[in-house]
Amino acid sequence: MAPSAQAPAAAPAPPPKLSAAHTNGTAAAEADARESYADEAARYLARAAAMSTAFMRAGELADAPVARWPTSRDLRANVRLALPDAGASEEEVFASMQSMLDNSVNPYTGRFLDKLYSAPRPVGLAAEALLATLNANGHVMSASPMLSLAEEACVAGLAQLCGWDATLADGMTMPGGSASNTLALQTALQRHFPAFRDGGVLGASLALHASGRSGRAARPLLFTSSQSHYSLDKAAMGCGLGLDAVVKVPCDAQGRMNVAELERLVEEAANDTEGRAASAGAPFFVNATAGSTVLGSFDDLDAIADVCGRHGLWLHVDGSWGGPVLFSERWRHLMHGIARCDSLAINPHKLLNAPLQCSFALFRRGEALTANSLDVAYLFHETSDDADAQHSTLSASAQASEARLARREHPGSMAYGCGRRGDALKLYLLWQRYGRHGLGAHVDAGFELAKRVSQLVREGPHANLLELGPQPDELFLQVCFRPKEPSHHAAAVDGQTRTCLLRTKATRHVYDTLRARRRFAVDFAPLPGDLGDFIRLVVHPRTAWTDLHALVAEVAEIGQDFFAASQTA
Amino acid sequence: MAPSAQAPAAAPAPPPKLSAAHTNGTAAAEADARESYADEAARYLARAAAMSTAFMRAGELADAPVARWPTSRDLRANVRLALPDAGASEEEVFASMQSMLDNSVNPYTGRFLDKLYSAPRPVGLAAEALLATLNANGHVMSASPMLSLAEEACVAGLAQLCGWDATLADGMTMPGGSASNTLALQTALQRHFPAFRDGGVLGASLALHASGRSGRAARPLLFTSSQSHYSLDKAAMGCGLGLDAVVKVPCDAQGRMNVAELERLVEEAANDTEGRAASAGAPFFVNATAGSTVLGSFDDLDAIADVCGRHGLWLHVDGSWGGPVLFSERWRHLMHGIARCDSLAINPHKLLNAPLQCSFALFRRGEALTANSLDVAYLFHETSDDADAQHSTLSASAQASEARLARREHPGSMAYGCGRRGDALKLYLLWQRYGRHGLGAHVDAGFELAKRVSQLVREGPHANLLELGPQPDELFLQVCFRPKEPSHHAAAVDGQTRTCLLRTKATRHVYDTLRARRRFAVDFAPLPGDLGDFIRLVVHPRTAWTDLHALVAEVAEIGQDFFAASQTA
Repeated sequence: MAPSAQAPAAAPAPPPKLSAAHTNGTAAAEADARESYADEAARYLARAAAMSTAFMRAGELADAPVARWPTSRDLRANVRLALPDAGASEEEVFASMQSMLDNSVNPYTGRFLDKLYSAPRPVGLAAEALLATLNANGHVMSASPMLSLAEEACVAGLAQLCGWDATLADGMTMPGGSASNTLALQTALQRHFPAFRDGGVLGASLALHASGRSGRAARPLLFTSSQSHYSLDKAAMGCGLGLDAVVKVPCDAQGRMNVAELERLVEEAANDTEGRAASAGAPFFVNATAGSTVLGSFDDLDAIADVCGRHGLWLHVDGSWGGPVLFSERWRHLMHGIARCDSLAINPHKLLNAPLQCSFALFRRGEALTANSLDVAYLFHETSDDADAQHSTLSASAQASEARLARREHPGSMAYGCGRRGDALKLYLLWQRYGRHGLGAHVDAGFELAKRVSQLVREGPHANLLELGPQPDELFLQVCFRPKEPSHHAAAVDGQTRTCLLRTKATRHVYDTLRARRRFAVDFAPLPGDLGDFIRLVVHPRTAWTDLHALVAEVAEIGQDFFAASQTA
Repeated sequence: MAPSAQAPAAAPAPPPKLSAAHTNGTAAAEADARESYADEAARYLARAAAMSTAFMRAGELADAPVARWPTSRDLRANVRLALPDAGASEEEVFASMQSMLDNSVNPYTGRFLDKLYSAPRPVGLAAEALLATLNANGHVMSASPMLSLAEEACVAGLAQLCGWDATLADGMTMPGGSASNTLALQTALQRHFPAFRDGGVLGASLALHASGRSGRAARPLLFTSSQSHYSLDKAAMGCGLGLDAVVKVPCDAQGRMNVAELERLVEEAANDTEGRAASAGAPFFVNATAGSTVLGSFDDLDAIADVCGRHGLWLHVDGSWGGPVLFSERWRHLMHGIARCDSLAINPHKLLNAPLQCSFALFRRGEALTANSLDVAYLFHETSDDADAQHSTLSASAQASEARLARREHPGSMAYGCGRRGDALKLYLLWQRYGRHGLGAHVDAGFELAKRVSQLVREGPHANLLELGPQPDELFLQVCFRPKEPSHHAAAVDGQTRTCLLRTKATRHVYDTLRARRRFAVDFAPLPGDLGDFIRLVVHPRTAWTDLHALVAEVAEIGQDFFAASQTA
C-alpha cells in the first residue's frame, strides 16, 4: 500500500504515481499515466491512417494478391503471435499493426468475391473512427445521446422504406444478421406466448396444452425455406425450440419458398391437435428470405403475408443480404409486401458496403419490443419525463409517440444484450453522403454487373467450358457457375449424377487453384436439386469488369486442365 | 437496361459507368465510381483523426463539460437529424461528423464515472482503425487470417491466466458480456442435455422425465446470486428457460453469493423429484460473479466449484467486469478457483479500457463448443487438412490439438451468430503495448484509487455529510455513497426506513443536479438490504484525484442544500 493512500485525504493531492506504488509497473504504464490521451492518440491515428491508406493503395495495384497466404496452414507456418509479460515500445506495436495488414486479405483489390461483404466505403471508415473515439455505449441514451439519435433516424428512415408508420415502428442495430433474426424470433415468442417470459418454452407448451393441444402438437413451430440462412436453425437451437421445431419449406427451381406448400405444412401441423404425426406443432412464426445466401432469391412476401394473415403468424423477413433493394426504385418490387410484415433484418454492411458490423432489426409495431425488457433498477432509470407521460391525458397516437421516446431512453432494454456499439452511425453517414438515390444507384449497379457476368458465362468466349447454375429470373448479385467438360469429352460423362460428381470435383479443384494463385477469392456452394457444387461469386457494385472477365476465363482454363488430366488418368 | 449490358461481352470492356446507366445516380455516386478508395479514405481518415484528437484535447481541459446536454429532452429540442434523398457533399458530411462529437458525452474529461467503461486507450483506437480498414469477418479464418490468429493468441493467453490447459481451452470474442454469458449458458445446455439440440427445452424436459423426474422437477434450473448481472435473467428468458428457471441465491452483506445457501437450494431443487414444491427442478448451471455491477463483489469461486463438483453442475464465471484482476499478481487471488471453472466471460472493454466492444467467452474444455455448430455446406468447408486429421493415428493430445485447429478454421461455427468483428485485436495490441505486467499495474492503480476515494468519503472533510455504502472488504473500483443529514438535523430523521427514503430522495437530487451541471457523470443504484439508492461512482485508473476530490465535495454540498431545503419545507 502506498503511504499516500493511507492517510485520509483532506485536500486535493496530486494524482497517484503508478511507478512509485507498483513494483511491477512497466515503463509503458508510467508513460501512460503522464501523457495526454490526445497526444498519444494523434500518433496512433496518424500511423494507422498511413498504414491503412498504403494498404488500400497496394490493393488497388493491378497485380496485388488478394491474400498473402493460400491457406491457414501456410499462415501458421510463417507467422507466430505472442503476448508478452513486459510491454513493448510504440514502434514495436506499429510493427505489429503493419504485420496485421501485410498478412491479411486485401478487399481493396476488388477481387475478394468470396462473401456477401467487400471493401467498406471510406465514409464508413470515418464513422468507425468516430465510434472508436466516442466509445459510447448504446444501451442508454444518456451515455450515447447522438449515436442514439442517429440510430433512431436510421430506424425511422428504414421503416419508411418499408412503408411502415415510423411513429409506431421501432428497432435497433444488432451485432449481425443472425442476431437480428434471433431477436425477431424471441420477440415473436414473447408476443405469441405470454408464458414464455417466465415459463420459457415449457410455459408456452403448457399454454398450448391448455388450449386443447397435446403431445408434440403442443410445441411452437417456425417455418422457413430450405434455402434460408442457417441462422434460423441456430436461433431455434439457441432459443430452446430445438432444430426439430424448424419446418423447412421446399423451394421452387429459383430458390424461392413454395408458398402453397408453406400453407399446406402450416395447416398440417396446426390441424393435428393430438400430435399424432411427426409434423404436429403450433405454428407461430414464418421467416421469409429477401436475398438468399447462395442463389440470391427473394421470397414472395405478399403471398406469404396472405398465409400469415390467415393463420395469425408472425412474419419476419431476413433481408440481411437483399434488404437494401428497398433503396432502389427499380428493384424494390422484389420486396413488395414488406409493408405487411412484422419484422425485418437488414445489413447495410453487406450490399451497401458499410463496415462490419452494421445490421438492423426492425419491427413494424415497436411496442412488441417492450416484452423483452426487464426492470433493472441500477441501469434503466425512469426519468421524471417518463412519469409525466404516464400521467398524461394524451391522445392514443401521442401516447404511442411518448411510449416510443421512453423506450428509446434505454434502447438496450429492447434486446437481450446490454452494452451496444453505435453501429447505426455507419448507415447514417453513408445515407447522408449518398442519399437514398445514391444508395439506390449503388444497388442498381450491382444488379447490372451480375447480369453482365451471367451473360458472359453463358454466351461469352468460354461458354463451351462453363455451366451456369440455376438462377432467379431477376438475378441478384451472386453468379453460380462451374467448369464443364469440353464437348469432345461429353461422351465420357454418363448420367446426371456422375456429371454432377465430376463437375463438383472440378469446382473444388478450381477453388483450390484460385486460392493458391491468390489473385481471386471466390467461394463454392452446393446448389439445390442435388446439382453438386458450383463456384459462387458475389459481385459488388465496384467490382471491375476487367477483373470479372479475367476470373471467368481463369475458371474455364483451370477446369479445362482438370478435365484433360482426368481424361488422361 | 443499359445497352452495354445487353450484348454478351466477348472481351474486357471498360467498367460500367453508373452515371450513364442510371438516371437516379447522384453526383456522389458518380464520383464514387471513379475515385480510388485510398485517396478518398485518406481525406476521411485525416479529418476524422483531426476531429477526434481535438475532441480529446477539448475534453482534457480543466473545465470541459462531460456532456453538452443535461437530458435527452434538451438534446432533442436542439438537434434534429435527417436522412436525405439526394447525397450531400463531403464537407457537409464532415460537418455532421463534427456535430456528432460536439453533442456527445466526452469521456476524455475523465469525469465520466457513470459506467463500467471510460475513455479508451489510444492503442485501442489504432486497433479499431485497422479493424475498420481490414473489414474482415471472423466467422471463417480464410476471410480473417490474422484477426483469427490474434483471437487465438488472446484466448490462449487468457486461458493461461486462468490456469487452464491452453491446448484444450478455446473461446472467442462476443459482442458483449451478455452475449458471452448467454453462449456459456447455451453451451452448458447442449452439454448437459444432448436432446436440447433437436428437441429444445422440451427435449431436455423429456429426458429429465425419462430419468424419473416429473412435473416441474423436469425443468432445467440455473443458479446465480441476487447481485449478479441481469444478463443471466435475459439469457434464461432468451434461451427459452424462462425467468422462473433462474434461482437467485442470497448474498452476504458484502454482496457475495452465500455458498451454503447455494448448496441448500441446489439440493432442495434436485431432491424434489416429483416436483411438489415451486422450487423443484434439475440444477445444471451455476453462474458466479467476479466483480458485481453495483458493489464490485467477487463470489468465492473455490467454494462454489466444490458445490458444482459435488452436484455435477457447469460453473460459469461472469467476469465481465472483474475478470481482468487475473492480470494482477496482487489481486488475482480474488478469482482463486477459476482454474476449476468451466467457462468465463471477461470484457477488456471495461476495466482494461479497450474500446467497446471487446468481450471474450472462454471455455476450459473447448470441444464443448462443437455442440453449437451446424454443418453448413456453403460456408464451413472441410479442408483436406481436416480430412487428413480424421484419418490419422495421432496421440490423444495431438488429436485434441488437431481438433482445435480444425475448429479454429471456422470460429463462427462455435457460437450462434455468423458474421463477427475481429474484436480480439484490441486486447492483442493492448497486451503487446503494456504487457501482462503493465495491465496488472493498471488494475492495481484502480484498486488503490477506489480505496482512497472511500477513505475520503468516510474520513475526509465532508465525512459528516456523507454516508458510505456497504462495500466488500477488498474494495473493487466502485464507491457507493450518498448525502446524509448534518448532525444537527439528525433528530428529524426517525427510523431506518424513513432515513433511507429521505437519503434516496437526496441521492436522486444529487444525480439530477450533477447532470444539470454537466461536470460529472455518475450513476445511482439501489443497494442490497433495502438501503435505498446510493450514488455509484466507478473510478478508472486514470481518473484524476483532484476531480474525485471535487466530486465528493460537490455531492456533500448538493446534499446539504437538499436537507436544508427539506428542513425548511
